[in-house]
Amino acid sequence: MASLRVAMIGHGFMGAAHSQGWRTAPRFFDLPRGVDLALVTGRRADAAAAAAQKWGWAESSDDWRTAIARDDIDVVDIVTPGDSHAEIAIAALEAGKHVLCEKPLANTVEEAEAMAAPAEKAFARGVVAMVGFTYRRVPAVGLARQLVAEGRLGTIQQVRAAYLQDWLADPEAPLTWRMKKESAGSGALGDIGAHAIDLSEYVTGMRLASVSGTVETLVRTRPVLASSSGLGGTAGTERGEVTVDDSAYLIGRYDSGVLGTFEATRFATGRKNALRLEVSGTDGALAFDFEDMNALRFYDATAPEGRQGFTRIQATEAVHPYVAAWWPPGHILGYEHGFTHQVVDLVQAIADGTQPTPSFADGLHVQRALAAVEASAAAGSAWTAV
Amino acid sequence: MASLRVAMIGHGFMGAAHSQGWRTAPRFFDLPRGVDLALVTGRRADAAAAAAQKWGWAESSDDWRTAIARDDIDVVDIVTPGDSHAEIAIAALEAGKHVLCEKPLANTVEEAEAMAAPAEKAFARGVVAMVGFTYRRVPAVGLARQLVAEGRLGTIQQVRAAYLQDWLADPEAPLTWRMKKESAGSGALGDIGAHAIDLSEYVTGMRLASVSGTVETLVRTRPVLASSSGLGGTAGTERGEVTVDDSAYLIGRYDSGVLGTFEATRFATGRKNALRLEVSGTDGALAFDFEDMNALRFYDATAPEGRQGFTRIQATEAVHPYVAAWWPPGHILGYEHGFTHQVVDLVQAIADGTQPTPSFADGLHVQRALAAVEASAAAGSAWTAV
Amino acid sequence: MASLRVAMIGHGFMGAAHSQGWRTAPRFFDLPRGVDLALVTGRRADAAAAAAQKWGWAESSDDWRTAIARDDIDVVDIVTPGDSHAEIAIAALEAGKHVLCEKPLANTVEEAEAMAAPAEKAFARGVVAMVGFTYRRVPAVGLARQLVAEGRLGTIQQVRAAYLQDWLADPEAPLTWRMKKESAGSGALGDIGAHAIDLSEYVTGMRLASVSGTVETLVRTRPVLASSSGLGGTAGTERGEVTVDDSAYLIGRYDSGVLGTFEATRFATGRKNALRLEVSGTDGALAFDFEDMNALRFYDATAPEGRQGFTRIQATEAVHPYVAAWWPPGHILGYEHGFTHQVVDLVQAIADGTQPTPSFADGLHVQRALAAVEASAAAGSAWTAV
Amino acid sequence: MASLRVAMIGHGFMGAAHSQGWRTAPRFFDLPRGVDLALVTGRRADAAAAAAQKWGWAESSDDWRTAIARDDIDVVDIVTPGDSHAEIAIAALEAGKHVLCEKPLANTVEEAEAMAAPAEKAFARGVVAMVGFTYRRVPAVGLARQLVAEGRLGTIQQVRAAYLQDWLADPEAPLTWRMKKESAGSGALGDIGAHAIDLSEYVTGMRLASVSGTVETLVRTRPVLASSSGLGGTAGTERGEVTVDDSAYLIGRYDSGVLGTFEATRFATGRKNALRLEVSGTDGALAFDFEDMNALRFYDATAPEGRQGFTRIQATEAVHPYVAAWWPPGHILGYEHGFTHQVVDLVQAIADGTQPTPSFADGLHVQRALAAVEASAAAGSAWTAV
Repeated sequence: MASLRVAMIGHGFMGAAHSQGWRTAPRFFDLPRGVDLALVTGRRADAAAAAAQKWGWAESSDDWRTAIARDDIDVVDIVTPGDSHAEIAIAALEAGKHVLCEKPLANTVEEAEAMAAPAEKAFARGVVAMVGFTYRRVPAVGLARQLVAEGRLGTIQQVRAAYLQDWLADPEAPLTWRMKKESAGSGALGDIGAHAIDLSEYVTGMRLASVSGTVETLVRTRPVLASSSGLGGTAGTERGEVTVDDSAYLIGRYDSGVLGTFEATRFATGRKNALRLEVSGTDGALAFDFEDMNALRFYDATAPEGRQGFTRIQATEAVHPYVAAWWPPGHILGYEHGFTHQVVDLVQAIADGTQPTPSFADGLHVQRALAAVEASAAAGSAWTAV
Repeated sequence: MASLRVAMIGHGFMGAAHSQGWRTAPRFFDLPRGVDLALVTGRRADAAAAAAQKWGWAESSDDWRTAIARDDIDVVDIVTPGDSHAEIAIAALEAGKHVLCEKPLANTVEEAEAMAAPAEKAFARGVVAMVGFTYRRVPAVGLARQLVAEGRLGTIQQVRAAYLQDWLADPEAPLTWRMKKESAGSGALGDIGAHAIDLSEYVTGMRLASVSGTVETLVRTRPVLASSSGLGGTAGTERGEVTVDDSAYLIGRYDSGVLGTFEATRFATGRKNALRLEVSGTDGALAFDFEDMNALRFYDATAPEGRQGFTRIQATEAVHPYVAAWWPPGHILGYEHGFTHQVVDLVQAIADGTQPTPSFADGLHVQRALAAVEASAAAGSAWTAV
Repeated sequence: MASLRVAMIGHGFMGAAHSQGWRTAPRFFDLPRGVDLALVTGRRADAAAAAAQKWGWAESSDDWRTAIARDDIDVVDIVTPGDSHAEIAIAALEAGKHVLCEKPLANTVEEAEAMAAPAEKAFARGVVAMVGFTYRRVPAVGLARQLVAEGRLGTIQQVRAAYLQDWLADPEAPLTWRMKKESAGSGALGDIGAHAIDLSEYVTGMRLASVSGTVETLVRTRPVLASSSGLGGTAGTERGEVTVDDSAYLIGRYDSGVLGTFEATRFATGRKNALRLEVSGTDGALAFDFEDMNALRFYDATAPEGRQGFTRIQATEAVHPYVAAWWPPGHILGYEHGFTHQVVDLVQAIADGTQPTPSFADGLHVQRALAAVEASAAAGSAWTAV
Repeated sequence: MASLRVAMIGHGFMGAAHSQGWRTAPRFFDLPRGVDLALVTGRRADAAAAAAQKWGWAESSDDWRTAIARDDIDVVDIVTPGDSHAEIAIAALEAGKHVLCEKPLANTVEEAEAMAAPAEKAFARGVVAMVGFTYRRVPAVGLARQLVAEGRLGTIQQVRAAYLQDWLADPEAPLTWRMKKESAGSGALGDIGAHAIDLSEYVTGMRLASVSGTVETLVRTRPVLASSSGLGGTAGTERGEVTVDDSAYLIGRYDSGVLGTFEATRFATGRKNALRLEVSGTDGALAFDFEDMNALRFYDATAPEGRQGFTRIQATEAVHPYVAAWWPPGHILGYEHGFTHQVVDLVQAIADGTQPTPSFADGLHVQRALAAVEASAAAGSAWTAV
């Protein structure tokens, strides 16, 4: 079967990760279809051309509509800021292209709803859409889900999740697009809280039904960014207003009735990228921390008394999700492997004509949860249905 | 100066710990006054006599009023359930005895207020009162407080605290006095949440000003206890109602304006006694877990770039609080050492005529915070002033 | 039955630990016989009297022979430096006293042999002798031995042990009696290497049969000690020669044919008291570190593929050795608890008329292993039978 | 400048890693010269062709001499078993090709010497040779070397290194080429012990001068391999002899006079790929474990008393070696990144005309150390000069 021809819309930090995924997946995995890195687009022609050169895309364009217009493009991969997701994804789906869209699906529930509907219709025509919660594709996370699904935790009784970063702990850290509501939609909540919510739901199979939230902007003005680099940049002398949250907290009740706690913060000094999940059940528990992403800790409460404890399972064995394609046991996988695995799953779904997960409907659900948190926070943390 | 003659009221699990404290403090520390274990009282004469024999108290009685009545008793140490604290403590203070009262100070704010007032008056007469938050006396916790006080964390920007246990994770774990409102006042919130609140305030020097709380009773009936042992016991066949919470969550705003999260739960499968505190500031952070109680993790954000990280300080050096009296570096201290340190500080305060901490006023504050959490929870997690 | 009357010979650092053991054992454990702290002796009358007062012994003497001479003394507990062990222990055994002797049993094989013979004879008369390898009495160590004994490790294939300290890492750390051959016999090898050897043999049930050793004195002169304190002290200006090793390494072959590695060092900067043992077998492995002494890590190689990992068992459950007498799960035990447990086991053996372990014969074996290491080192690390 | 055209000789497990390095380096790093994956060779034409397809090499051949003969090949990358290294590398160097040779450099000292001489001569002609100890290129390892070089450890006083694996812990694990002397040269010693030695020398800047070694073949016969996969394979019914060591131990004295201990074993149940290094000095220490390869633990003994501890530096900051090209802080790098970094350094050295490290002379030194260990072991662990 012909290779899939892929166009990537945008080419920032996420573009590097997605490109590595597209380039690497066919090398380590036996994909049902080949993959061609056909086109990358960006707002500035020179930057797009440089990205094409650097990340290995055959062509570049300064207009994302080129990707939609070209008949030979099969897949549109969207890595732009959230405010442009809806327009691009809807256009791509309507043009019959498969879509991979970075998370969060959109900046508002309205946009997300506007995306989920055409995604559902497109699937009826054999066109798939997927949202990029790549942390689902960490082997240790896949193992966590398996353990829950096998019933090794018994009845789940509580969940605690957190996504801890510290790059705003310095009050003089500069203002970037991620701190402006118009571009980012929300702050810590939407960027990293969304991951914590999705991860907890993916692993447990439960869905948040209602929330009590607190959304905070601790540092209200920051130096305007003079030049950007990675997640940060160099500060200028002018100060601008931070218009999104920089930390968010929620207690949620899942559809199963149990409670979960969530924290998303950029003030956790010393925690760089600590996406953490702990799930506790009648028969066991599991704990994960992305800063130690190759390990899953599992507690088997059905083991003999005095022999129980958290077992640190190094999820680098061939039997663990995705690992057989990589290295022998004990050889660490890294951040970008999730992007390779994402490509593997997407290409497989396209070849099989099945719905990849997380779907746009899943992304919409997360968006609704985020909106419920904001509504609750605005109402003095009153419990609010998702 | 004559030795202090001590009477201990009650002799359960806490009585063992307090007795060990009284017995051991004069051996390892140079106390300004000696200590005599004069009297232990309990509701049943035979049990009290057995406790006296086992734990090394000279005499026993089945009536706590004996301790109040006897002129030769200098200190009354209360280790009974919370519903009796007020009556005993007030009587002791009025009789001119120094009082050490286990936490929480009382089961209600009203009782705690009724205790704080006479404690303040008694202090004017040279009689001191102290509440037993012994975790303040763990060397690593004392070190944490020092680091904050020295400004090593800069401006504190957030706090996360939790007290995780799992002895109710089994829905068939039996009903004990700790799960009945009339004896225990509250459940996880009052028993272990109180520790988390006090610890965070002790280390940071900040005080909770308002809270949004959620209080849960996940397992609503449990087998009635046939016989008790430690924190648990053997279940019978009859079921009774759990009338306190078994897990509680709160977001609090400190008087400084920053937020803290708290979780108190007995469903954290695999976590036995994990009192955890993480404090994050502009210049650093610290993290503590009672299950690794000899260590404090400190992150120095002012260290050179690329050299930063959490430093695991083993608080077993002679320069750490209380440690000089014990063993060489690297020799672990345990749970009961806090009770010895508590005696050291109380005896020193008595000798000096100074107010020991935590005072009854401190205990009252914690009680008010707990009450605010319950009020918030009853009002749909609405923010409630402490 | 009448209480055992105990005399302690010596009262340094070890005296504090032993005293705490004697004082505490009857409180937490149901001993078959009571214990009286009758007499402490030391070379200087005033120091012995102060020790009696501080550590709770009824009387004191400046002559250890008093303890031998007194008919009312049942147990002699020897905590002096190793060069005096033989004389005191032999005299005590001949006088019909039970003996507890700190490790190492003696400074030379000759002395140890001279002690083991009368100990064996004494046992025929109902008098017991025990050597104080207290690390055997850490609950996590007891659990380790149980796991091996149950066959959970399958066939043991290798052992790695180390005792890492760092108090000589500073070349200016002062010269103490522990660095002089005449008082200490050997240095790191005899003091801490002995623990590593005994621990490995206790846990595995195997015995070292031959060794290849390297014994080093890295820092050959040190400032003469002006005043002593704990393991260290204050340095003077004069320098003296270090006449024992400060680090020692050995590879040993056990009687089972498998190899073990051992390191004893006082140069492991940052490691304060890290007695470590890892035992690897066909079906599992276990790892212990005294700096995290409440935990045992166990790897079950018979667990399903992909579910294996090191389980951190917190040995604080009632089913773990000795723990039922103490606190609820998750409450840390410390260094001195081993000394309490040692008393428990000794008193039980005395009451039962059984041979306590480790026996003097066990202590002699360790002494022979140490001597073989020294002989091997002197012969260019040639393999030497124990 | 024209891109470098690379031929890879061999395409097993190491071929996958090297290919990923060649493919990825130009994407994330600004290389002074481009890189073309021109040719891969293998003994079987079909397998070589499949490898070319899978790993992205333009052409394939069943004869490594093709790579030597072709004028357009600039770099020869050797990933075959050790017994063929010498012949290929020498031919390549003589043909004026730059050479990257997997470790160990060769199976014998004689072969290694035969390679080092032409490498030195070739360098005089601007042709470089490098041996593939990729662990040097882990960012945390680079940081370790920096800390030593800056003097942060003071005078190094001892080293402990180990490479622990467990894939031979099962006595029924099958016989592969790595367990036969004719193909592998040596076993655990040469395969993984070589890494431990090189790593310790790279980080400390010291070189082993003499050793006392023990080399063991614990399991002497194993089932003959029916089919191979990764490091293992499926066992047949016939048994064959293991003709290399499966574990090796050595104590070494560095040229500085200090001692180091080394262990290389495949019986460390539960340890999958634990290359560990701890270096202790008068002013500090550092500890590394490849199973937690993104972290370096550093102990600063010059920090204020009571504030010292091992700092876990997550070497994922832009200031750490190689990291600026990758992801934001806290995003884990994996095993294969070392192979990318190796390419970066090699291409830079080629462009600069400088000697890359480790050189063939470095590889020869390691080979000599390995030979000294074997000689020592054969002489009853007698100390043997390297």
